[in-house]
Amino acid sequence: MNKTIILNSRPVGKPQQSDFKMIEEEMPEIKDGEILLKTKFVSVDPYLRGRMSDAKSYVPPFELQKAMSSGVVAEVTESQNDQFKVGDFVSGMLEWKEFQNSNGENLLKINDQLAPLSNYLGVLGMTGLTAYFGLTEIGKPQKGETIVVSGAAGAVGNIVGQIGKILGCRVIGIAGTDEKVELLKSKFGFDDAINYNTNKDMTKAIAEVCPDGVDVYYDNVGGTISDSVHANINRLGRIIVCGAISAYNDTSIPQGPRVEHFLIRKSVLMQGFIVSNYAENFPDGMKQLSQWLSEEKLHSEETIVEGFDNIPQAFLNLFEGKNTGKMIVKI
Amino acid sequence: MNKTIILNSRPVGKPQQSDFKMIEEEMPEIKDGEILLKTKFVSVDPYLRGRMSDAKSYVPPFELQKAMSSGVVAEVTESQNDQFKVGDFVSGMLEWKEFQNSNGENLLKINDQLAPLSNYLGVLGMTGLTAYFGLTEIGKPQKGETIVVSGAAGAVGNIVGQIGKILGCRVIGIAGTDEKVELLKSKFGFDDAINYNTNKDMTKAIAEVCPDGVDVYYDNVGGTISDSVHANINRLGRIIVCGAISAYNDTSIPQGPRVEHFLIRKSVLMQGFIVSNYAENFPDGMKQLSQWLSEEKLHSEETIVEGFDNIPQAFLNLFEGKNTGKMIVKI
Repeated sequence: MNKTIILNSRPVGKPQQSDFKMIEEEMPEIKDGEILLKTKFVSVDPYLRGRMSDAKSYVPPFELQKAMSSGVVAEVTESQNDQFKVGDFVSGMLEWKEFQNSNGENLLKINDQLAPLSNYLGVLGMTGLTAYFGLTEIGKPQKGETIVVSGAAGAVGNIVGQIGKILGCRVIGIAGTDEKVELLKSKFGFDDAINYNTNKDMTKAIAEVCPDGVDVYYDNVGGTISDSVHANINRLGRIIVCGAISAYNDTSIPQGPRVEHFLIRKSVLMQGFIVSNYAENFPDGMKQLSQWLSEEKLHSEETIVEGFDNIPQAFLNLFEGKNTGKMIVKI
Repeated sequence: MNKTIILNSRPVGKPQQSDFKMIEEEMPEIKDGEILLKTKFVSVDPYLRGRMSDAKSYVPPFELQKAMSSGVVAEVTESQNDQFKVGDFVSGMLEWKEFQNSNGENLLKINDQLAPLSNYLGVLGMTGLTAYFGLTEIGKPQKGETIVVSGAAGAVGNIVGQIGKILGCRVIGIAGTDEKVELLKSKFGFDDAINYNTNKDMTKAIAEVCPDGVDVYYDNVGGTISDSVHANINRLGRIIVCGAISAYNDTSIPQGPRVEHFLIRKSVLMQGFIVSNYAENFPDGMKQLSQWLSEEKLHSEETIVEGFDNIPQAFLNLFEGKNTGKMIVKI
């Protein structure tokens, strides 16, 4: 039998285990032109929360009682498609199933000799590309500028910070535990980092570690943490609005200080994006990230959870900040 | 004697007549290299409200008990400077005085044969340049796109709408009276316009006149009007944050729905600016605006108040929406 995880109910507020359901399906059979894929690694990401709701968004919502899907690395175990042979590894948007068939469309062949397979869901996947294009295309950081990253120990955040350092910037991270703060400084080369859970006055804390103000803010969280960064933004600053995990489980649009005043006063840019806006440049991004990885300028950080059954829990843990770097489930 | 209007007190909330004071000074005498200027037209603008407070901003605050200043058109009545002769007209940032001397620095000589003098404070001055550069440099409207302008009957707004039409866009205005709504359509060529004071559900009202959504939002007002435009913004939309007159008199930062969610979901850009960011391109902007004006593609709209003593009241009237187009005081 073939384990499959389906969307059982649309979460209201914080997702629960009961919003998911594990079912057993018949093993798929492949037809001419198809391949059989065995799931090796599954990516769980905050943005999936949006697809669990039925609100209009940039990607259609998951259907109730149908399999969930996300970035997956899989191995080809049977093939009736000339493009793939048994033993090939691929990555793509695939379903949360132990086995599934595919016609090979939209799958990327990946090389486990160049990098560990899980990296293709992290630093060499959408996560790395999100960090890279958001920072370089929107943030356009100049050498010597100050970059602040929220959710800095998260999947995207730690890579943003590392790229910022490669580009010659001063980089400050915001994270939620002392352990993460330490890791940002010791392992990822951040110049400084702040624990938002222990700092009462974040606006002051940011001002202290950013004596020249904030030129670029890479925002993964939104909410009051962002308010305190906005208060320190420089003239002609750039705010990359990548994520707002603080609000993903809210049942109504959260309220906060209106931004127009400081946007005008400081001539600030705020730009939201999704990584697929830059799809035509993915090959260039992959090439640059691979190069930095092979030169050991970039370090891949992953939190690996084991076992197919644990995919929902790994996803739920994202909202508790339990991951450092990319959260990946190994099957 | 020489009438002068000084800042008497810093307003808390809405400015009052008593925040200004008229004093009489000795007539200025000019030294070698200087000119004597007689004030002809004075520009009053919402942004002056910011300079009346002592909060840090992009321009330093006005000093208490010192003369106010703004854009002024003046006539040279005495000259000991080779660059200027008696009878020349100039525009520049000058004080609210009937007469003042100047060394000629930062003054622009203007030609009353090419356009009425007051136009150099409006469509051919900072107002026109603000409309032009905000719309073209940030909004980058493409032919056929939908532009919504708030404060559409105001100084900047009506020019934004007219430029939008010249560029081949569908243009919708938001204004506060039926008379203004009518004027936008009949005189300025807006495709449609909405009265925010009589429409209970602005989100729905905007959706109705923007069946293809909003590609570019030129925002002069902020607040709940903007919320309703944001709710109709298209993927890859651009929001030009030019003004937030709805909040200029607030004593604390107003609260509203956080914007991060829709910025991400729709990959939207929000950019604040002040016109001086584009200072090096002013000659090009002036040239383009002059050309459209001479071709009668662009119409100059001004609300002229008469009399030096009425400068403060003309300024206060801005916050009551009493002007259509540029508010100018004729001396």
